[in-house]
Amino acid sequence: MCVVYPTQNLNQFVVVLVAPRNPLNIGAVARAMSNFGAQKLRVVNAYDVAFREAKSAVGASDVLTRAEEFRSLADAVADCRLVVGTTSVGHRNLNHPLRTLEEAGRIIRRRLSAGQVALLFGSEKVGLTTEQMTHCHWLLRIPTREQHSSMNLAQAVAVCLYEMVRSKTISRHKAEEDGIRAGDAERFTQLLLHALAVSGYTKPASAEATDQKLRRMVRRLQLSSKDGEIWLGMLRQIVWKIDRQR
Amino acid sequence: MCVVYPTQNLNQFVVVLVAPRNPLNIGAVARAMSNFGAQKLRVVNAYDVAFREAKSAVGASDVLTRAEEFRSLADAVADCRLVVGTTSVGHRNLNHPLRTLEEAGRIIRRRLSAGQVALLFGSEKVGLTTEQMTHCHWLLRIPTREQHSSMNLAQAVAVCLYEMVRSKTISRHKAEEDGIRAGDAERFTQLLLHALAVSGYTKPASAEATDQKLRRMVRRLQLSSKDGEIWLGMLRQIVWKIDRQR
Repeated sequence: MCVVYPTQNLNQFVVVLVAPRNPLNIGAVARAMSNFGAQKLRVVNAYDVAFREAKSAVGASDVLTRAEEFRSLADAVADCRLVVGTTSVGHRNLNHPLRTLEEAGRIIRRRLSAGQVALLFGSEKVGLTTEQMTHCHWLLRIPTREQHSSMNLAQAVAVCLYEMVRSKTISRHKAEEDGIRAGDAERFTQLLLHALAVSGYTKPASAEATDQKLRRMVRRLQLSSKDGEIWLGMLRQIVWKIDRQR
Repeated sequence: MCVVYPTQNLNQFVVVLVAPRNPLNIGAVARAMSNFGAQKLRVVNAYDVAFREAKSAVGASDVLTRAEEFRSLADAVADCRLVVGTTSVGHRNLNHPLRTLEEAGRIIRRRLSAGQVALLFGSEKVGLTTEQMTHCHWLLRIPTREQHSSMNLAQAVAVCLYEMVRSKTISRHKAEEDGIRAGDAERFTQLLLHALAVSGYTKPASAEATDQKLRRMVRRLQLSSKDGEIWLGMLRQIVWKIDRQR
């Protein structure tokens, strides 16, 4: 006989649903979150704004009531230090590092003691778009079959949450794993984009591609919050100089 | 970059739904089974006999079509060598050994090579009854919170199936990418130092300290050779712009 409850604290874990279409799925996500003790639900551009009434949130109306709505993905993850996307694509050439859920769980559990971690789920039909993925440090994939890889949204959330609480060991926080907030990464990206545009590096025709490429590259740097602050300060000064001279 | 598909063979794994009420849940169970490669669905005394039409079985109509119906639980598990029940009860005095899902997964995976293993899920409202549990060798529990332990049926199935295939995931990593050469890191550092000096970020008095601090920071970025080349290109352009304007 044993007693089995999760001891992993998911206070810092943020579930972000990007452009979800079906309110019933959002409710079912809230239920899974409540089951595993995750409270922070963020919804970016829900197709149906009346999702808070979803009956599928059995026993989890508080999660749904407190869900935060955002107009942009950048805003939804701005205060998070690690942003991870989910994908059902396991083989195509992705522009991001791809980890198994198990491996991702180990990393995320460790990072949760240092700050908020966001896990992103794309819309039911198409998942996360390439542009949305650029906000992520890396991606995880649940090991579904190649022939039928696309999961129900709330089931995917449930499986990911289970992996987060599965191992009952609470890992200790390591100082060097304290990454910059996504909002600062985005500020860094925007400053850099501005500098590149002004200095003629970016061609207007390819601006969008550069934008996405750059956002990914900045996330790959995995800056610590201390270093991130310094990099931001340096870039601000350089941009100020360029702008003043124009 | 890695490729993540399950290799655990679930041919011998039987999902048994006992007295399920909602056909949509049955369809959603079929979808989860198809996602993880489990084919054998057995349904005992479904409340709604028209469950085979459930639209929720997205991409899994074959699992639903081949589902077997039984009048009694005893018949449904008759050809199985191990019968495991699921429960959301984690503390009450049960008459059965209770294992964590993780522990259960280890045992079930081992037993799958020897014969069929049945995993039983009770009805949505009450779970498995005491009588139904008597058909089980032991029980497993998904580590949900005590305060909200009852999961959506299909989500519970998805989480259990994930645990079955989890550790057998193949994760093939691309050979570790080479980092940039030290010479390029130094070129990057020098360009940056120049930009910072010209833009007034560096005070001459503290130039040497900045120099050292920056060199360390650039190394901490651990740039890949591909990314490093792009960062160098961007920085060159920005520096060129600043210099031209002076």
